[in-house]
Amino acid sequence: MSPLPRDSLEGSLAETRAAVAEMLDQRDPTFSLPQPFYNDSRLFALDMEEVFEKQWLFAGMSCEIPAKGNFFKIEIGSNSIIVVRGAENRIQAFHNVCRHRGSRLCLKDKGKVAKLVCPYHQWTYELDGRLLFAGSDMGADFDMSAYGLKPVAVKSAGGFVFVNLSEDPEPIDDFLVSLEHYLSPYDMDNVKVAVESNIVERANWKLVLENNRECYHCNGAHPELLNSLIEFDDTDDPRSTGEYRDLVARKQADWTACEVPWQLARFGKRNRLTRTPLIDGIVSMTMDGKPGCNKLMGHIPNADMGSLRILHLPNSWNHFMGDHAVVFRVLPLGPQETLVTTKWLVHKDAVEGVDYDPERLRQVWDATNDQDRRLAEENQLGINSRAYQPGPYSKTYEFGVIDFVNWYSETLRANLGVEASPQLQVASQ
Amino acid sequence: MSPLPRDSLEGSLAETRAAVAEMLDQRDPTFSLPQPFYNDSRLFALDMEEVFEKQWLFAGMSCEIPAKGNFFKIEIGSNSIIVVRGAENRIQAFHNVCRHRGSRLCLKDKGKVAKLVCPYHQWTYELDGRLLFAGSDMGADFDMSAYGLKPVAVKSAGGFVFVNLSEDPEPIDDFLVSLEHYLSPYDMDNVKVAVESNIVERANWKLVLENNRECYHCNGAHPELLNSLIEFDDTDDPRSTGEYRDLVARKQADWTACEVPWQLARFGKRNRLTRTPLIDGIVSMTMDGKPGCNKLMGHIPNADMGSLRILHLPNSWNHFMGDHAVVFRVLPLGPQETLVTTKWLVHKDAVEGVDYDPERLRQVWDATNDQDRRLAEENQLGINSRAYQPGPYSKTYEFGVIDFVNWYSETLRANLGVEASPQLQVASQ
Amino acid sequence: MSPLPRDSLEGSLAETRAAVAEMLDQRDPTFSLPQPFYNDSRLFALDMEEVFEKQWLFAGMSCEIPAKGNFFKIEIGSNSIIVVRGAENRIQAFHNVCRHRGSRLCLKDKGKVAKLVCPYHQWTYELDGRLLFAGSDMGADFDMSAYGLKPVAVKSAGGFVFVNLSEDPEPIDDFLVSLEHYLSPYDMDNVKVAVESNIVERANWKLVLENNRECYHCNGAHPELLNSLIEFDDTDDPRSTGEYRDLVARKQADWTACEVPWQLARFGKRNRLTRTPLIDGIVSMTMDGKPGCNKLMGHIPNADMGSLRILHLPNSWNHFMGDHAVVFRVLPLGPQETLVTTKWLVHKDAVEGVDYDPERLRQVWDATNDQDRRLAEENQLGINSRAYQPGPYSKTYEFGVIDFVNWYSETLRANLGVEASPQLQVASQ
Ligand code: FES
Ligand code: FES
Ligand code: FES
Ligand SMILES: [Fe+3]
Ligand SMILES: [Fe+3]
Ligand SMILES: [Fe+3]
Repeated sequence: MSPLPRDSLEGSLAETRAAVAEMLDQRDPTFSLPQPFYNDSRLFALDMEEVFEKQWLFAGMSCEIPAKGNFFKIEIGSNSIIVVRGAENRIQAFHNVCRHRGSRLCLKDKGKVAKLVCPYHQWTYELDGRLLFAGSDMGADFDMSAYGLKPVAVKSAGGFVFVNLSEDPEPIDDFLVSLEHYLSPYDMDNVKVAVESNIVERANWKLVLENNRECYHCNGAHPELLNSLIEFDDTDDPRSTGEYRDLVARKQADWTACEVPWQLARFGKRNRLTRTPLIDGIVSMTMDGKPGCNKLMGHIPNADMGSLRILHLPNSWNHFMGDHAVVFRVLPLGPQETLVTTKWLVHKDAVEGVDYDPERLRQVWDATNDQDRRLAEENQLGINSRAYQPGPYSKTYEFGVIDFVNWYSETLRANLGVEASPQLQVASQ
Repeated sequence: MSPLPRDSLEGSLAETRAAVAEMLDQRDPTFSLPQPFYNDSRLFALDMEEVFEKQWLFAGMSCEIPAKGNFFKIEIGSNSIIVVRGAENRIQAFHNVCRHRGSRLCLKDKGKVAKLVCPYHQWTYELDGRLLFAGSDMGADFDMSAYGLKPVAVKSAGGFVFVNLSEDPEPIDDFLVSLEHYLSPYDMDNVKVAVESNIVERANWKLVLENNRECYHCNGAHPELLNSLIEFDDTDDPRSTGEYRDLVARKQADWTACEVPWQLARFGKRNRLTRTPLIDGIVSMTMDGKPGCNKLMGHIPNADMGSLRILHLPNSWNHFMGDHAVVFRVLPLGPQETLVTTKWLVHKDAVEGVDYDPERLRQVWDATNDQDRRLAEENQLGINSRAYQPGPYSKTYEFGVIDFVNWYSETLRANLGVEASPQLQVASQ
Repeated sequence: MSPLPRDSLEGSLAETRAAVAEMLDQRDPTFSLPQPFYNDSRLFALDMEEVFEKQWLFAGMSCEIPAKGNFFKIEIGSNSIIVVRGAENRIQAFHNVCRHRGSRLCLKDKGKVAKLVCPYHQWTYELDGRLLFAGSDMGADFDMSAYGLKPVAVKSAGGFVFVNLSEDPEPIDDFLVSLEHYLSPYDMDNVKVAVESNIVERANWKLVLENNRECYHCNGAHPELLNSLIEFDDTDDPRSTGEYRDLVARKQADWTACEVPWQLARFGKRNRLTRTPLIDGIVSMTMDGKPGCNKLMGHIPNADMGSLRILHLPNSWNHFMGDHAVVFRVLPLGPQETLVTTKWLVHKDAVEGVDYDPERLRQVWDATNDQDRRLAEENQLGINSRAYQPGPYSKTYEFGVIDFVNWYSETLRANLGVEASPQLQVASQ
């Protein structure tokens, strides 16, 4: 694959890289980022090119494509990707771009097909991407094998599907092994999406992530969520109280007894898994704290599972309770526009209207998402001012934001292709 | 006329020219264009400056401005143009820009005026562009003759009106002489627009043209159109069958007998005229193949005229049947946005509701336009992906696309003001 | 305050400055501006940076924030500003940007607060900008005094509030002393906003101002306004007639008798104050010329006050009659988009529905604003054409436009940070 360099007409993107590298080299890692990181269109282009097109991204759930020919589509910036289940139950991903004149192949968000047929001139591809048919006459020297769909790296574990647009994706199997392990009680082959929401936040994707990575704002913003959630981020949160640690110890003993994983696991700053208790007596993120679905997930022995929190930078966080799970996917749409997709999962055999009411299930996170959207949008508007300058994160309340911002800074910095300035190299020795 | 160079604040447009020249010099002429040609905003600026502001463009029909003072307006990029019939039946065109402070003069799409009066301070221009009145006091040394409307080159033949924004338009009379000849049976002074449609396609203008220049997609996309149209592009289409050639021979004999021109005529790749049969027994592009208008056009002896197809690059294609004609005009609005105007013409004396039903007349091409819009929009979305790379045109199905793309490439290349790179000059010797 | 330079990622803004300086040095001061001044996005960035962020701008009326804790918000480009009445009746202004992570603090357009509390994490600021509370744990070395709100220069006189985003604002007290004097009969502490309108004009802000600075277009455009307004701009308008001068002399004698200021006062081209008569027998800018409010303003002795016209470049003009006043504020939104806010003021004790009908009060200027919007929008569309070139202003009809455009040109030129070219320096000696 040798696509045209996208910056062929943008002579100054190289200058942008150098300017961005310098800002990263000079920033205080406990302060928020300089303004251009949140609103500049060239910096956004770099975010897409060097982060979203090189990192493993959460795309969707494997339960959404249960059978051969099922597919879903995901748009990563201007790149349309098809994730499809092919022969032998294999999940594959391709660029949704016909090799003839470039039309998108799949127009719908999800569906089921026998082959992948281009709507324009009906070039037809096998589910594994091979070109099978290219009109009746492309000439004698036309080599069908050279025109298969361009593959996209895809990996699946614990019911999660990740894609990576890089040609040489970095390893992620350490995390995936753990993911598989933590999710095994949930029997992710027997799960379904009960209901889904898609909202657009007029804020840079990093503001959406920063907002998620702290609960400093929860007290002022999230009454519905605080019916169930305890603000402490995980079991080594520096603010946690003795009472909280007692609750945690008690719950962890219960979870150990029923062989449900709960230990805090980290993979750099990129991934984290940990099960933490909800408020004592509360079993689910619903308005009344009672289960949102009467049928528990997988082999879960009882509803009182707290929340298994799964973080995957740059684009996902998740809550798995006993009765249902909520998965979140973040996709940048522009420098100040981000799509947030939320899916509520229940046992495949749970019956809508009997075991669960989708309106009730979504209530807490619909409210919370909307509150977070407003916070992120006001954050964006303030940052757009010339008066904005990076401000200090609280090390006790916002360590999760610090971790995210530094993961981002290191990841982008490593991919900029710009040497550190000599002066700073010396300084850091 | 010495307008400010529009790139006075765009230092890097020169770099863009060089990059575009190199892409053109290196492309395979049987493959689709590199991505920036379809979505880059600077390349779009070049398309406007070097193609749409230098080529003869189809603007409208002379029957739309039948009498002195009738005008229509056309927007070519950000340039608003008035086409007006002046004294002695002369069609003239002007920039729709007041010489006082620059207001547009004509706000409506069409109309009739005695003089051209600016809505701002009522500066008043003769229909030939001369400034007649400039308020009551512009000072003693104000030279009225220096402030006439800026003229735009205009030519008319066979009922078609073409404009050219260049100060030194290239010759087009060869084509116009033929156009006049082919249209003479239609008596274009006695024609009217029965109905008109304007749709915006979210696709680059070249994708709209490419879509029109092949019928490879017709089978999969255009059931209504294929009620009447035969897919073969013209009489030397390499795919044509013996049966088709027999039909053609028979029809050509009929047309010769009634002195209606049908011969294939080409003017480079820019213009083509040819009359080709519709499906045997079908006389018009209507749902049932029967005439859309009971009164035939001009001196047309019978309805069975096939379709006189007229191509004018970069912005028009047309079908003239016995009972009615359909004319198409393409105007770029942005890198990924194009206006397509369709007009259905009938004999001036045909009576709406008696001789023709506008809803019935427009049915086939309304459906076809909408189908083509969707194809072009999906083509655009796929091309926007980093995975897009130029793909091969079929020489038997897409020779018309190859011709268009190469006409475009040669036209733009010649106007870029960049020398070919030495290496390539040698290579082509 | 040392915000990140906003052009850190725009290497070519320096080139733009040089190009703009050259265009300004070479323009004819009696002609309209070259095209980029009206539609180029980089030039718009310069307008914001060098004019709107450095000049005193009309923000609102002091009567809108009558008591401690009352605030209003104003958005100057991407800069959100709070104007708030603090302790001891003092009006203060701050950047509406939290020093923590940059959220906007005040989300509403106006309101009343005890403290300024950030909606995100509840950092709390005193009305004088001091940070009072920053969560429960920002660390031992956190210096609260370093994180107060960033102040914005603010001045108030005659009921008008002006803000200036520069750190070193230029003096304006000469004008403010006069403003206070001319407004004293209006007792601006006892005034209220009866009704307000906000319209967006799709035109560059300078076209909105140019439109306001002449009445050359009034005859063709403003029937409602011409029920009351005399077209002559002020008492030294070169077009004024003997009859007009008689009327003026008579009215000025009346105004002198009741000690109401009327003399023409100018502060460079930036400010002008002058009271001029309305049409004889007409006392207010209403459809029938009768008072719009039965209760006169302040200590005004009778309704027949003509109109006190107050100009403040770059963003305000105003009419103060005996019964009511109309104040106008212009804020650029983009290169071709401008917000125009109109407020109708009456005596604080006037009772809606009894003393005045808001619908009647706003009628003339609602109609006039809409007419001017259309003129400015058509002006913009014509100027966008490559055929546009600067046109001549009439020295007798458009001296006000010439003054505005030259004030703008000199103001921008002085702030560009580019030396005049040597050749031109010689030429001007
Ligand atoms: S673009 Fe897909 S078949 Fe032609
Ligand atoms: S702009 Fe046309 S008359 Fe003034
Ligand atoms: S951004 Fe204001 S308190 Fe956090
Ligand atoms: Fe939140
Ligand atoms: Fe088609
Ligand atoms: Fe006006």
